[in-house]
Amino acid sequence: MVVLAQCSRCPPRKSIHSYHTVVLYRCKLVVVARAEEYEDRRRELLEAVFRITAERGLDEVSIRTVAAEAGVSVAKVQYYFRTKDELLLAGFEHVMQLLETRQQRLDYSGPMRQVLRDCLLVWLPIDAERIASTRVFLAFAVRALHSPQLAEIEVKLEEEVVSSLAALIARGQELGQIRAGVDPEQQAQLLLAVLDGLTLQMLLNPEVMTVRRGTAAVDAYLDALCSS
Amino acid sequence: MVVLAQCSRCPPRKSIHSYHTVVLYRCKLVVVARAEEYEDRRRELLEAVFRITAERGLDEVSIRTVAAEAGVSVAKVQYYFRTKDELLLAGFEHVMQLLETRQQRLDYSGPMRQVLRDCLLVWLPIDAERIASTRVFLAFAVRALHSPQLAEIEVKLEEEVVSSLAALIARGQELGQIRAGVDPEQQAQLLLAVLDGLTLQMLLNPEVMTVRRGTAAVDAYLDALCSS
Repeated sequence: MVVLAQCSRCPPRKSIHSYHTVVLYRCKLVVVARAEEYEDRRRELLEAVFRITAERGLDEVSIRTVAAEAGVSVAKVQYYFRTKDELLLAGFEHVMQLLETRQQRLDYSGPMRQVLRDCLLVWLPIDAERIASTRVFLAFAVRALHSPQLAEIEVKLEEEVVSSLAALIARGQELGQIRAGVDPEQQAQLLLAVLDGLTLQMLLNPEVMTVRRGTAAVDAYLDALCSS
Repeated sequence: MVVLAQCSRCPPRKSIHSYHTVVLYRCKLVVVARAEEYEDRRRELLEAVFRITAERGLDEVSIRTVAAEAGVSVAKVQYYFRTKDELLLAGFEHVMQLLETRQQRLDYSGPMRQVLRDCLLVWLPIDAERIASTRVFLAFAVRALHSPQLAEIEVKLEEEVVSSLAALIARGQELGQIRAGVDPEQQAQLLLAVLDGLTLQMLLNPEVMTVRRGTAAVDAYLDALCSS
């Protein structure tokens, strides 16, 4: 991510998007430093979006509430996100990135059942951090039903998750660790469905669908999928 | 549901809630007629809530937008629902009732796999009617994450669905039509999770998770559950 930073020593340049373009004109180092600072400030605002959504719901997110939560002026938020739609789009990308990063950090070297289980647990609300991220994720996913822009992000992520799960299932079949008869892509879609559904149950009814029961349900599902 | 209807021939009575109480005082028939009309008007407003939520999302529901959608005055809506919270609560109950009625109408006499399949398909967005009702249901379910009142309704319904599915699975086990090794309640919770998750995928990404693929996924799940 780069940013327009007008250098006082350089002639004016035409920008495409005020926050998507960098003017690399003679004074490159100055620009890069500013871009980093820009990214830090932007991330702080997206973390405010995240907190508001996790605690109070997506309806409460606005330029005004984000400014209040981050302790900056409304104008400051508008400098980074011109409209509420831009703010929401970036907020959704932010939580996606968070979840993807967590998935990428996993150990993929163990038995396939364990690898699949670790992958699935990234998306399940089994601790405070994941409760927050799944609340935010679900809120955006449902908002996406009425927003083509958000839907595009959601669909892209969903396809990535399904294809990575399908690849793991196919590899598990090659290794003889997963039942040969199942269709990897269909099973991956079912696994994602199980995850989304369990997440909803665990968030809404944590006294009944406890962390223990949620993970037990995932295990029961994996038991059926893996050859014993 | 009953309603306060002040009869001009009767002495004034104290009401508990203006729309929850009926004054049955000498002139019962008059009151009942008015209560029916009251229910009809109230239902029309809840149908407006349903349409707005299905088409534009729950964020768009307000006393004002419901009045506009139903073609009545704001005061008229406020006569039936004093606050937006009351409107949302009744709106959630309305869609729940719709889905429950559909489930009650099913034929429960066939093989257990078919009965279970019919039950599950009530909740899956496989036609225009069910696309609308699942959109509305999901919107309310996610809003319930931040509303204890809505969560109470959601949890109650979820428990009913899980216990009715668990009873069907247990009966299927007795009949030797469902694998003996599985725990009916856990399987019922997994089935509900699968449903919620598939619904989300089908609504968000109907080009990839088509009706055909969604029902195929349910069938694959039922194949694994039922002894062949």
